[in-house]
Amino acid sequence: MRRELQMLQNRMREEQVDAYLIMTDDFHGSEYVGDYFKSRKYISGFTGSAGTLVVLKDRAGLWTDGRYFLQATPPQAGSGITLYRSGQPGVPTVEEFLSGRMDAGQTLGFDGRCVMADYADGLRDILEEKGVTIRSDFDLVGDIWESRPILSREKVWILDERYTGASRKEKIARVREVLEQKSADWFLLASLEDICWLLNVRGNDVECTPVVLSYLLMSGSRVCWYVQPEAVSAVVRHILEKDGIEIRGYDQVYADVSALAPGNRILYDRYHVNDALVRCVPSSVTVIDAQNPTTLLKAVKNPVEVENERFAHICDGVAVTKFLFWLKTHVGKEEITEISAADYLEECRREQENYIGPSFAPILAYGEHGAIVHYSADEETDIPLRPEGFLLADTGGHYLTGTTDITRTIALGPLTRKEKELYTMVLKGHIQLADARFLKGCTGMTLDGLARTPLWERGYDYNHGTGHGVGYLLSVHEGPNSFRYRPVKKRGYDCIIEEGMITSDEPGVYLEGEFGIRLENMIVCVKDMENGYGSFLRFEPLTMVPFDLEAILPELMTEKELQWLNDYHQKVFRVLSPYMSLEERRWLEKCTRAI
Amino acid sequence: MRRELQMLQNRMREEQVDAYLIMTDDFHGSEYVGDYFKSRKYISGFTGSAGTLVVLKDRAGLWTDGRYFLQATPPQAGSGITLYRSGQPGVPTVEEFLSGRMDAGQTLGFDGRCVMADYADGLRDILEEKGVTIRSDFDLVGDIWESRPILSREKVWILDERYTGASRKEKIARVREVLEQKSADWFLLASLEDICWLLNVRGNDVECTPVVLSYLLMSGSRVCWYVQPEAVSAVVRHILEKDGIEIRGYDQVYADVSALAPGNRILYDRYHVNDALVRCVPSSVTVIDAQNPTTLLKAVKNPVEVENERFAHICDGVAVTKFLFWLKTHVGKEEITEISAADYLEECRREQENYIGPSFAPILAYGEHGAIVHYSADEETDIPLRPEGFLLADTGGHYLTGTTDITRTIALGPLTRKEKELYTMVLKGHIQLADARFLKGCTGMTLDGLARTPLWERGYDYNHGTGHGVGYLLSVHEGPNSFRYRPVKKRGYDCIIEEGMITSDEPGVYLEGEFGIRLENMIVCVKDMENGYGSFLRFEPLTMVPFDLEAILPELMTEKELQWLNDYHQKVFRVLSPYMSLEERRWLEKCTRAI
Repeated sequence: MRRELQMLQNRMREEQVDAYLIMTDDFHGSEYVGDYFKSRKYISGFTGSAGTLVVLKDRAGLWTDGRYFLQATPPQAGSGITLYRSGQPGVPTVEEFLSGRMDAGQTLGFDGRCVMADYADGLRDILEEKGVTIRSDFDLVGDIWESRPILSREKVWILDERYTGASRKEKIARVREVLEQKSADWFLLASLEDICWLLNVRGNDVECTPVVLSYLLMSGSRVCWYVQPEAVSAVVRHILEKDGIEIRGYDQVYADVSALAPGNRILYDRYHVNDALVRCVPSSVTVIDAQNPTTLLKAVKNPVEVENERFAHICDGVAVTKFLFWLKTHVGKEEITEISAADYLEECRREQENYIGPSFAPILAYGEHGAIVHYSADEETDIPLRPEGFLLADTGGHYLTGTTDITRTIALGPLTRKEKELYTMVLKGHIQLADARFLKGCTGMTLDGLARTPLWERGYDYNHGTGHGVGYLLSVHEGPNSFRYRPVKKRGYDCIIEEGMITSDEPGVYLEGEFGIRLENMIVCVKDMENGYGSFLRFEPLTMVPFDLEAILPELMTEKELQWLNDYHQKVFRVLSPYMSLEERRWLEKCTRAI
Repeated sequence: MRRELQMLQNRMREEQVDAYLIMTDDFHGSEYVGDYFKSRKYISGFTGSAGTLVVLKDRAGLWTDGRYFLQATPPQAGSGITLYRSGQPGVPTVEEFLSGRMDAGQTLGFDGRCVMADYADGLRDILEEKGVTIRSDFDLVGDIWESRPILSREKVWILDERYTGASRKEKIARVREVLEQKSADWFLLASLEDICWLLNVRGNDVECTPVVLSYLLMSGSRVCWYVQPEAVSAVVRHILEKDGIEIRGYDQVYADVSALAPGNRILYDRYHVNDALVRCVPSSVTVIDAQNPTTLLKAVKNPVEVENERFAHICDGVAVTKFLFWLKTHVGKEEITEISAADYLEECRREQENYIGPSFAPILAYGEHGAIVHYSADEETDIPLRPEGFLLADTGGHYLTGTTDITRTIALGPLTRKEKELYTMVLKGHIQLADARFLKGCTGMTLDGLARTPLWERGYDYNHGTGHGVGYLLSVHEGPNSFRYRPVKKRGYDCIIEEGMITSDEPGVYLEGEFGIRLENMIVCVKDMENGYGSFLRFEPLTMVPFDLEAILPELMTEKELQWLNDYHQKVFRVLSPYMSLEERRWLEKCTRAI
């Protein structure tokens, strides 16, 4: 049994805790978390970016979702940890497991700061009825963690208005309008992306996400920002204070929330505020549970942001297209592996204007690795690329002018008929969504079907959404806009697609042990036309990188689909060719020819 | 000013009521209501099947929705009633209107039995905060209504198990399973279709809907049915009592609900139980607000029901196809009007086995009348059919073996290019939905987009859902399954489409002042295949009536669409031709030829 697990069990015994829950969240429910928060990894050794660990007195269970079934090394025999594959038939959920195992008089513990309020409430509903006691006011992993990394406190920097397109004062005023509509006196915000968007600040406290660990509490007249003082330089402090932002200590938010005046009304989103913070709200204060008003405001990009994103995508398109040229002309001639190819692509991006860094860990997956949806090459799995089959490359970058996320599946040499057929089906789905005209009021649920139909007709599917919102120099995954066909228990999943929203369009197909295909552009929703039926909307692709004509069977495409592809390729050539060398330009011309 | 309106205002003064609300609901929230419940019509004269009247001391407002903008005669000048077009820009909702007009100390009145609990709660939330008093324990219209029709108490009859495919005991047991899962002691049910489905009874208390005015209250051991005693014959009583159903007086439910024991848990659907009934629940009883468990059980038709429906649709197809033959061969040669054509079609249906009556008021709309979505010809609007342009015919029947709902748009003679193009676009949409293969877990919101895409691409739309669930010898509009693309504030709108659900597929297009096109089949969801991606489902058309080849431009259709149409027509010919005369059969062969 792992030593760290035993140490935690000893600590549990001291506190008379029968089960201890460790989720993946930081204090803010962030998608990726800093090293300080990797308790689950410390105790279990499991490195996946999602998963829940339940530690009992003599054993432990680890729940992971579909993304990791192919990738995750099962916990080793003797580790004392059993793997549960979430969602598979017969596998209990964490809640079912706890409910089945725990009896009256027992105690479940967790760090309330690392569990979102909604989830904690659900556990209380289920377990307290059974007579189980819940303790959430401690951090048992922290107590035993030897040489825990410190809480990140990287320097905060200001994102200029020429990038944000709106001042923090304007944004704060718009949030205040919403609060007034809802008769809310206070708004408690813990989502890091929303805070950074609102204040026009960025930081570097979370991998691949330039955010600042902080909380925010605002009213009609005050904006209090709770942040580690070491992170805020005198200049930044001055700029923010000039706009009326009060800067307070990171942990001070708990005391300030506890001290809210009776009769006040506070708005927060219980899916995005941690349980410990919510439990500080005095019972004399009325809670308005609603989506963070910042979320929708942030998702609808303003004209300056959209124009910046267009520029970011030209830079990114130059980098990725130069990489494609290099790859196509060098594969089979020199040693290239998944990792060395990723490094080369990163170099191409680094040469671009305003580049900051990757927006997520690059996925370069050759051959059968392409079928592992969240594959990430490491020294053990890295393989050389051969001049045949598909390389799937899903990568992205942060620029001052925006964030990119692109997937191309690249023919490194001869392809089978099946590979070409499926590439063409995925491309058809991609185009059907990208080329849709639709009425305002339509949600991503309706549009999702357009991308899946060509695959469903042939009996294929992909076990992920067709698309996610993308932040502007924030998280590469951002809500509420998305394309998905299954209702999920998540606020805003059926959000209406609006002009200015930027979403990915990334259908795929994955054949275990064979290959994977995914084709992803970022697309921005724009006005199409208005008539008596309403306002029609459509999408404009932001991503500027050719699809692979060598993988397409044009005879399986409709005229409308071919027209879209040819128009897109013509535009790609037009915007990228000025940045290409002569040799690259000749190659690009061929790659973007009309078919 | 209308005399009835003045009488109500006098009565309001006596009771010191400042505003009185009259909605369209009966005590059960039925879609169509009996004459006893037509208070809104009595006071305002407005005959539409939906609408809300708000009566103030000196004036009144009538809210109607999009379906009636073209049809509804605006209230006459001097009637004292202002028309509000719901959903149009700048038009306040009823709630906004009341909230804006009413001040602290004033009183809003309504009959709590005719307002559903959810809506009444919403009003209380808005108005009581403003200091407005709400009274719902009276029926001011009833107090002044001269010669009000009596409450219908038509005879109850039993629907045999060979039609229902499941005994009432089986159904009750399945509901009890759900109650047990939810730890509910009692289930209060007021939806007439759900009650009739559960008890395998039918009646005739609501136009076009063979249901019985009644309530139901059941527990793990008891089933109490509250119904007017005059409606229940000794034989029916005996049959039901033998299965353990306790028959009690219609109004007794209010007293029985008031007498529920403290600590009990009661489940009801606050969207489908009236406010007066809910307010009888003692505060010591815990309420579980959830969709009626009967709703989903009823929507998923069992194999016997599906097989019966197939038979009903052959009978109905014979009737409609004979009508089409007569119409096509007689139009222009003798006087036929919208009403006389509807009468002929009804005669054709009456000749069919097991026919009971129309499932809704027939819509036969010629030429520009076709653009009025809920047009219903009366003596004033009836027009003769000429041998040109389109007749839109949306009709349906109740049979012992099920309920039908079919729309065909019929070329009565030469068509313009535009008419043919739009007919073809609507047909393409119809087929794309009917021919879809999709994964289990998919909702009607995703499928809806398939039907709209051909129209959206050309800048057209239809302002109604693509499809609704259809009851089995119950209401022709039944939830929760539907095809729609806009989220609605209605429980179950994003219901997952399951094997056995029967839904209509009816895209359309409506050009005001020109013509309307709608093409509707009922389709049943069936298994397609299973593989590693999950269970695939598809649809099978139940309706068996040809589409009009004279209106189709085959060059605008894909091969897949033509294949579907030709296969469908081949099947229509095969199943209908045995019931046709020689002359009809020759004609049908031509109408169903492959194109």
